[in-house]
Amino acid sequence: MDFVTNEKLTIVGAAGMIGSNMAQTALMMRLTPNICLYDPYGPALEGVAEELYHCAFEGANITWTTDIREALTDAAYVVSSGGAARKAGMTREDLLKGNAQIAEQFGKDIKSYCPDVKHVVVVFNPADITGLIALIYAGLKPSQVSTLAALDSTRLRSELAKYFKISPDEIRNCRTYGGHGEQMAVFASTTLVAGRPLSELIGKEMPEGDWADLQQRVIQGGKHIIDLRGRSSFQSPAYLSICMIAAAMGGKPFEYRRRVRAQRRIQAYPDGDGDHHHERGRRL
Amino acid sequence: MDFVTNEKLTIVGAAGMIGSNMAQTALMMRLTPNICLYDPYGPALEGVAEELYHCAFEGANITWTTDIREALTDAAYVVSSGGAARKAGMTREDLLKGNAQIAEQFGKDIKSYCPDVKHVVVVFNPADITGLIALIYAGLKPSQVSTLAALDSTRLRSELAKYFKISPDEIRNCRTYGGHGEQMAVFASTTLVAGRPLSELIGKEMPEGDWADLQQRVIQGGKHIIDLRGRSSFQSPAYLSICMIAAAMGGKPFEYRRRVRAQRRIQAYPDGDGDHHHERGRRL
Repeated sequence: MDFVTNEKLTIVGAAGMIGSNMAQTALMMRLTPNICLYDPYGPALEGVAEELYHCAFEGANITWTTDIREALTDAAYVVSSGGAARKAGMTREDLLKGNAQIAEQFGKDIKSYCPDVKHVVVVFNPADITGLIALIYAGLKPSQVSTLAALDSTRLRSELAKYFKISPDEIRNCRTYGGHGEQMAVFASTTLVAGRPLSELIGKEMPEGDWADLQQRVIQGGKHIIDLRGRSSFQSPAYLSICMIAAAMGGKPFEYRRRVRAQRRIQAYPDGDGDHHHERGRRL
Repeated sequence: MDFVTNEKLTIVGAAGMIGSNMAQTALMMRLTPNICLYDPYGPALEGVAEELYHCAFEGANITWTTDIREALTDAAYVVSSGGAARKAGMTREDLLKGNAQIAEQFGKDIKSYCPDVKHVVVVFNPADITGLIALIYAGLKPSQVSTLAALDSTRLRSELAKYFKISPDEIRNCRTYGGHGEQMAVFASTTLVAGRPLSELIGKEMPEGDWADLQQRVIQGGKHIIDLRGRSSFQSPAYLSICMIAAAMGGKPFEYRRRVRAQRRIQAYPDGDGDHHHERGRRL
């Protein structure tokens, strides 16, 4: 069985729930045999590596290290979930101070150890902001950094499918903009529901109040998972972030176009005013 | 993208760490669109279902229920991790009393609600025994039930690869027998190391004491994960159990031949004396 590429993929934060799932997902997708797991916490990292060895992925060359220099050296692709996770009662923005510092150091480490990296996906929250910080300190081009706002779009898709009681596959072109958090802008304008524009359904088949409630469910989608599972979501961010890096590595294109690049994100804040766009998002 | 089959696959214990990973793994492998998640604990189950909806697996028809009758009705394939997990300080056998009762009810439920099921994989520990109990109460043929002793064989493979500092792919035909626990028999006789019989290496390139230590590491492989990660292994049992059901569903054959059927397991205990075989396993 061939791999998509032989280039090195480094998973940062691989000892955590998201990181360990990302590693398994990347190996299952056979993106590359050369996967390096990094985490500052060695014992859990070794445990993850052991579990992956026990999966017996054919042809895999899985390495692990607690040395960030070793982890990033020669990395062509990097996915990082290496920040603190959200706990019950927190917004994503509550993570900002600590995770912003982590993102700064992550960007600097990329610049020091793998300045020729091809693509980086930043997952830790608030991901839209940590992605920007990493981008700036890494000295990469905006097109080389993706964040996880895609998850908001798939949440919109899922909520619409449940509301209209149809297959999620019949919901097309969902888009969310703005922050990956309370500042999120959940748009109706691009979405098709079984071929019909969502904008035309709102106020008719879908009362405006229902749409406003649904937008809230999308914005609070991550909180809802914490309420239900007792922990921050990890399967969906892990899976989607690996889908994103897979597209960059030459694998399957990221088909929902939810690869929200920092470039696009910057463009979404022309005046640095997230709330402005938030309000625009609320309009149809 | 096609699925291997359209038949219903039910994941029992889907709210747990193993079960939720099994569901994601099965969807990634595109075994069937029709995946039903069952767990008696509704909130966490809904949380898992939400995460999988947010992954946006194309063509997937993911349902969830806390009603075992609904979950098993029309199921062609069932994988169960629906027992208690091992905690630090426990052996797998410590789980026996509670999980044996769960296995009995699981078998009875299969007999009641899906007597025509094609294949069942039982993962909860001690899996060799719970699998047997489920088999007996379900009224299935031995060839229709698999348990997770495969994981012991991949652990043997991994330990040998580390010991000889070669790729795990160069270790072939690893076999373990007996219980999936302290009673495990770790055999050398079938294994090839880079084409050479392991039996010929022991006492030469590999001192006998090293082999005895390595056997212990295999037997304690699960405990080691608990020590390192602070929780029972979940990624490797989930992944391997889905590889097993995939083979039964018409997907890729389970290539390490670690699909340890209850039939073979019964044959491994002709006199009901696990220790006897344990000792045999220690001989070369």
